[in-house]
Amino acid sequence: MRARNKPWAEDHLKANPQFVPADPQSHKGCWKADVFGNNHELHIEVGSGKGRFITEMAKLHPDINYIAIELSESIALSALECMIEADVPNVRLLTINAEILNDVFDKGEVDRVYLNFSDPWPKNRHEKRRLTFKKFLDLYKTVLPENGEIHFKTDNRGLFEYSLESFSAYGLLLTYVSLDLHNSEYEGNVMTEYEEKFSSMGQPIYRCEVRYQ
Amino acid sequence: MRARNKPWAEDHLKANPQFVPADPQSHKGCWKADVFGNNHELHIEVGSGKGRFITEMAKLHPDINYIAIELSESIALSALECMIEADVPNVRLLTINAEILNDVFDKGEVDRVYLNFSDPWPKNRHEKRRLTFKKFLDLYKTVLPENGEIHFKTDNRGLFEYSLESFSAYGLLLTYVSLDLHNSEYEGNVMTEYEEKFSSMGQPIYRCEVRYQ
Repeated sequence: MRARNKPWAEDHLKANPQFVPADPQSHKGCWKADVFGNNHELHIEVGSGKGRFITEMAKLHPDINYIAIELSESIALSALECMIEADVPNVRLLTINAEILNDVFDKGEVDRVYLNFSDPWPKNRHEKRRLTFKKFLDLYKTVLPENGEIHFKTDNRGLFEYSLESFSAYGLLLTYVSLDLHNSEYEGNVMTEYEEKFSSMGQPIYRCEVRYQ
Repeated sequence: MRARNKPWAEDHLKANPQFVPADPQSHKGCWKADVFGNNHELHIEVGSGKGRFITEMAKLHPDINYIAIELSESIALSALECMIEADVPNVRLLTINAEILNDVFDKGEVDRVYLNFSDPWPKNRHEKRRLTFKKFLDLYKTVLPENGEIHFKTDNRGLFEYSLESFSAYGLLLTYVSLDLHNSEYEGNVMTEYEEKFSSMGQPIYRCEVRYQ
């Protein structure tokens, strides 16, 4: 997703610490108690884009803590607007690189990872940038508990095929798969902005859940 | 696939022992040497229907031995006709129940199992009849070598979703997956009768390869 550069983005994000905690590394190991003030599960979305999915999830599930992770500050601005409008206490936003996840969260501190419509990086030479590449599966493992889960959806066939193979090679257990989410029996789907826009064009949405073993 | 009952089927099959070996159990452990007279790889197709896939494969790959397995004698008749017409030496037909595979083949005697457009048995209570159910994965294992492979394709979304989950739960490694075979880079696809008929209706063909570990 390409966004116009918004130079005021950083300031605007800093001005809203109730949603965008400063110095995320300082909360490692104590996000639930320090930031959310409870001991609820913590679910994160890596590459959260404009943040509609995670904000909707936070509204629907007040007993779960959510953190949106979006590297681009320009895009994260939209997520912040979404959170300000929703005004729920159980969602936060971090503009960090996913590669430092293990500097921000302790082992087992994150209960579930969501990946939604991640950049497919279709060229073979960009495989390492895909959020389902082995290196990232290693990273998620460092912050999830023993049998932690990744919930992944995309409309990109090539990325989904690649990811199923990558999950299997990593030894993850595929506990759920839908090859046409919007025509399946799955209930409780919360759509991203992208999903709503593109699913009406007839492209099936692929979704799976995998579990570390 | 429902076929008209053909009472003469059994006699016609017996009259062609060059393609339909009598008493398959008697060849257990020596199919390659006794029946094919060589030491080439042996690939079997479980549920081969009218036999076009396996006969075409036998024509394309003269250095591989093929055995079609089709329980219904009425349907197997069409496969026999196909083999008689092709007149190649490296294909055979057995009208046995897949449940006795391990009475017919020794451990490691079969190098690859093909499953093409297997009956989806969509009702939950019929799960045990699906050819990718755990019981059948156990059976294929008893005749394949250590890292033996299953190659599976279907147009049935529910069956493919189920099978991916079943393969994963069994600990099989997913080495290849295509969610739209006819629009993929996969080369060398040999179509079944069914595949040719239904793929033109816009339904994607799903295909995967899995490996025992």
